[in-house]
Amino acid sequence: MDEPVLLTGAAGRVGTAIREGIGEAHEFRLLDREPPTGPVDHELYVGDITDRELLEDAMEDVAVVIHLAGDPRTDAPWESVLRNNIDGTQTVFEVAVEQDVEKVVFASSNHAVGHYETERKPDIYRTEEEFRLDGTELPRPSNLYGVSKATGEILGRYYHDEYGISVLNVRIGNLTKEHPPRNYERGQAMWLSHRDCAHLFDRAIEAEYGYEIVYGISDNDRKYYSIERAREILAYDPQDNSAEYTFDGEPKTD
Amino acid sequence: MDEPVLLTGAAGRVGTAIREGIGEAHEFRLLDREPPTGPVDHELYVGDITDRELLEDAMEDVAVVIHLAGDPRTDAPWESVLRNNIDGTQTVFEVAVEQDVEKVVFASSNHAVGHYETERKPDIYRTEEEFRLDGTELPRPSNLYGVSKATGEILGRYYHDEYGISVLNVRIGNLTKEHPPRNYERGQAMWLSHRDCAHLFDRAIEAEYGYEIVYGISDNDRKYYSIERAREILAYDPQDNSAEYTFDGEPKTD
Repeated sequence: MDEPVLLTGAAGRVGTAIREGIGEAHEFRLLDREPPTGPVDHELYVGDITDRELLEDAMEDVAVVIHLAGDPRTDAPWESVLRNNIDGTQTVFEVAVEQDVEKVVFASSNHAVGHYETERKPDIYRTEEEFRLDGTELPRPSNLYGVSKATGEILGRYYHDEYGISVLNVRIGNLTKEHPPRNYERGQAMWLSHRDCAHLFDRAIEAEYGYEIVYGISDNDRKYYSIERAREILAYDPQDNSAEYTFDGEPKTD
Repeated sequence: MDEPVLLTGAAGRVGTAIREGIGEAHEFRLLDREPPTGPVDHELYVGDITDRELLEDAMEDVAVVIHLAGDPRTDAPWESVLRNNIDGTQTVFEVAVEQDVEKVVFASSNHAVGHYETERKPDIYRTEEEFRLDGTELPRPSNLYGVSKATGEILGRYYHDEYGISVLNVRIGNLTKEHPPRNYERGQAMWLSHRDCAHLFDRAIEAEYGYEIVYGISDNDRKYYSIERAREILAYDPQDNSAEYTFDGEPKTD
């Protein structure tokens, strides 16, 4: 992508995986309430995601917005997700349409559908189980944070249908850097490695789509999220698999 | 229902249809920002839907909440639907759970799925067309009001899954009192007569369910919303049909 790509929430965990993995592949602009730690080679916009004027500046001449900003706490209080996640995402879409942005990639979450697990766990976390969510299902949030993410997906649906802007929702699994979460079956089933994360968002920047919901996880043997749609529309080709690690997070040697 | 039923937004159009049709059948409490005009035989709570203390009082010993309050304008600005419809509905669910309310009936809207019509109109409004929405589809809001209604449905999903409260979402069509909308095919296809509206909410108060999304329209010949789920789970038995009226809204005489 030759034109700038704006990364909101750039200092967060997903933003860090993207910057470390594909920071040189695109002309990124970074936006966050606090700048990332360490040296930054990119244009930086510091402020709140509901600050419309800041967003207008940050999105000028931008082709793609990767919208990660928001309260990331799964137990965040309603007032915070209402403002930071719901109102913030509406501001992003409103300004993106105004600034003729081509695509918005929205960081949704496994918590938008967390309550599908309730009556199915722990079997759902295991290899034998064939149950799969694929993004065509109605949301079943497991917390108010998940409600806010499902609402962000609906905002994207509206802005796509009404204004034609391309929208990709990535329901991100459990992102960790070096190995899958230790002793946490659920996290292993929805593991997303750093390199698969960076690759997935690289594909999200480059591929063509209308409105899509995909799951963002590695190619784990044990999984209850389908990655077929991400393969199909993004040519997502994950390299990692939590089954290649022991339950304790050590690489298998046999 | 022997226990009180709280009607929020009681002075609005749907609230009026309910009060006029089944006002004597249940012990209603009414809540609205402005009291209904004319004499009122019910307990009255006047104030804002985000006023938590008012809601706590109004829901004490209540078995069912029919939640109609909100900004009803399809072109309402985001700030208003964010506060009145999204934040207001979250407050209703939060207090309903706290006060051990059994059921919340949420007035959702055809605008939660309005963009399904975009590529299908005007054929979708006509008798020959077999396309039906049935409540299992993902939302496609036609405006920010519709976004707020789809978000209310998701809030209900969360509060049901998390706390067990029964939630019925009624995607209300085009409610008019004496005859279907004149010269408006879309409105005729989603017509809901006053008596069918009152009957539908009466069934919503009495029936047993977990979490449901149904369409609230009369049994119109021309329709693109299925009423099968409402018949099945609520024993909804509508008496009216827009096809019994001419296009101008006069009753057919032949």
